[in-house]
Amino acid sequence: MIETDALIVGAGPVGLFQVFELGLLEIGAHVVDSLPQPGGQCIELYPDKPIYDIPGIPATSGRELVDRLLQQIQPFNAPLHLDQEVSAVQRQPDGRFLVETRRGLRFLARTVFIAGGVGAFQPKPLRVEGLAAFEGTQLHYRVDQRSRFAGRHLVVVGGGDAALHWANHFAEAAGPLAAASVTLLHRRDAFQAPAAEVARMRALCAAHRLHFAAGQVSGIEQSADGMLSAIKVLGGDGVTRLMPLDHLLVFQGLSPRLGPIAEWGLAIERKQVVVDTEKFETSEPGIFAVGDVNTYPGKKKLILCGFHEATLAAFGAVRHVFPDKPVHLQYTTTSPRLHELLGVESPRHDDDVH
Amino acid sequence: MIETDALIVGAGPVGLFQVFELGLLEIGAHVVDSLPQPGGQCIELYPDKPIYDIPGIPATSGRELVDRLLQQIQPFNAPLHLDQEVSAVQRQPDGRFLVETRRGLRFLARTVFIAGGVGAFQPKPLRVEGLAAFEGTQLHYRVDQRSRFAGRHLVVVGGGDAALHWANHFAEAAGPLAAASVTLLHRRDAFQAPAAEVARMRALCAAHRLHFAAGQVSGIEQSADGMLSAIKVLGGDGVTRLMPLDHLLVFQGLSPRLGPIAEWGLAIERKQVVVDTEKFETSEPGIFAVGDVNTYPGKKKLILCGFHEATLAAFGAVRHVFPDKPVHLQYTTTSPRLHELLGVESPRHDDDVH
Repeated sequence: MIETDALIVGAGPVGLFQVFELGLLEIGAHVVDSLPQPGGQCIELYPDKPIYDIPGIPATSGRELVDRLLQQIQPFNAPLHLDQEVSAVQRQPDGRFLVETRRGLRFLARTVFIAGGVGAFQPKPLRVEGLAAFEGTQLHYRVDQRSRFAGRHLVVVGGGDAALHWANHFAEAAGPLAAASVTLLHRRDAFQAPAAEVARMRALCAAHRLHFAAGQVSGIEQSADGMLSAIKVLGGDGVTRLMPLDHLLVFQGLSPRLGPIAEWGLAIERKQVVVDTEKFETSEPGIFAVGDVNTYPGKKKLILCGFHEATLAAFGAVRHVFPDKPVHLQYTTTSPRLHELLGVESPRHDDDVH
Repeated sequence: MIETDALIVGAGPVGLFQVFELGLLEIGAHVVDSLPQPGGQCIELYPDKPIYDIPGIPATSGRELVDRLLQQIQPFNAPLHLDQEVSAVQRQPDGRFLVETRRGLRFLARTVFIAGGVGAFQPKPLRVEGLAAFEGTQLHYRVDQRSRFAGRHLVVVGGGDAALHWANHFAEAAGPLAAASVTLLHRRDAFQAPAAEVARMRALCAAHRLHFAAGQVSGIEQSADGMLSAIKVLGGDGVTRLMPLDHLLVFQGLSPRLGPIAEWGLAIERKQVVVDTEKFETSEPGIFAVGDVNTYPGKKKLILCGFHEATLAAFGAVRHVFPDKPVHLQYTTTSPRLHELLGVESPRHDDDVH
């Protein structure tokens, strides 16, 4: 059981900045996220695409923004618990929240910050009869251990950034990590991906290191020992062909869903968690919601708005964590105490010298 | 008469970012500020001190932040009218606002954004009988043309960053810009400035390039032709001495005041302009207030909160500027229209290829 002042659910940019604002107020935090790396949507959906509307950063990328935020919160040493989906939240007799994850982590938290984006992001599944049983063995919606694909016949399904990225990646892999073959399967020969990635794909096809097939998965075939041995592909010509494979990698995008948050008993409006604009607190005192998951009059789903929400939510948490401490706004430019917390040198003032 | 969709009063970080958010919504803006350069408090009060709480920027300075924002808003070409203090705002029969500055600029604006920090910042005056008459000729609260100090006897009054900065600057100036002499006058031999600046000052004193005197200005002396010829300085020893000079430079800090905004007829609460949290609009429809000048439940005077306020205010302005246009949130990462406005290349999608 991990006891903490604050538990932040979601390690996207807003969840990460929540650590910073809580830290300035000396509220310790743990962070859980269902994804295997920090960054949320920024990393899952557009790690390399430019973002132009972060104030003071004329151009950045999702990956760079997340790296900058991880650096910014580093002084606070907040543990990140990744690949952990929250499954239950329950208020205890002492007022704290017992939070459990599907994989068995248990937290006892004075305050909870839902920074869950538009809920937990789920890969859009490929709905073909019998296929789901192979998830994690021969069907993959994410690439975790790359070594398992060495020397194997791979089929990558999808026409967006992630599908092209991984098809190109495996087609280019050389040495012991090289695949036996790589096929990119998409319903048509047109892609939602940067032109450079598409050009790279076409060059690999021309060099016979990557195969492209236009069509849709319509069924599967299993071997005698119950392995997935092939998929049935319905081509544009109306003919169904068998495509043998060892692994099927599916990248059809992510589907936002509110996930288990919907079952926490909070006031919800059109799949968003209702908050006030003073503390960004939900209908449950001590539970805050920041970023794309919340709603209030005027709400815009922008990262920079989430940063403001996280800031006011941190101030809102003080009365739960330190009931007797007055909230006091200090500035990072001038406060020696904040400099100490941030681990930076305080400009020494020469006021004691006579 | 300048006609504009939006007039932003205040060119601090929040006023500058207001240009950006209006620009994304295709609302053109002009900016006026009473200071001679953009940046507001950030530049006037702490240009070189570090700021640690701008999200995604682990450490910056006021000057760097302002430079970054100026770069970010560059695509929108919003004219900056500096050294212009707004003196009157009046609604016209057609609903627009006639805004005038003390120096005679006139704007006809569909919307007005007050981004005036804690009001117009005024240098704290040195209150000595007869001195005020020399402001702009021999008494200075700002350094504008440095050449006027060449070959002159200067007295710099103050014990903070700005006083030490300018005393050191003039003491170090060589060649045709060198002063005849530089004296730093402060009530005691202790300073509110970075240790490095104080050390630099002491080294200059040791080298006899700068003189330090502890004392307070208690009066002035004029020459027969009505020039300021000397100040009377009351020393710590209770003795008053005459200090001859050509120019007196006073840096006693800035004093925030609401300035003429107080006379605009807006709802005010404890010297702050009251706004809603949906559009950050004041009691006067079409006039918005963002940043340190406004107040609402939960308000924290932080730059990052001002960025959020400017964003929602921009959306709030759409109905005044384009009454028939639905407000539509687009993302800088994906919107080709926003890429066009920002002057950046839109990642080409290969969707037309067959």
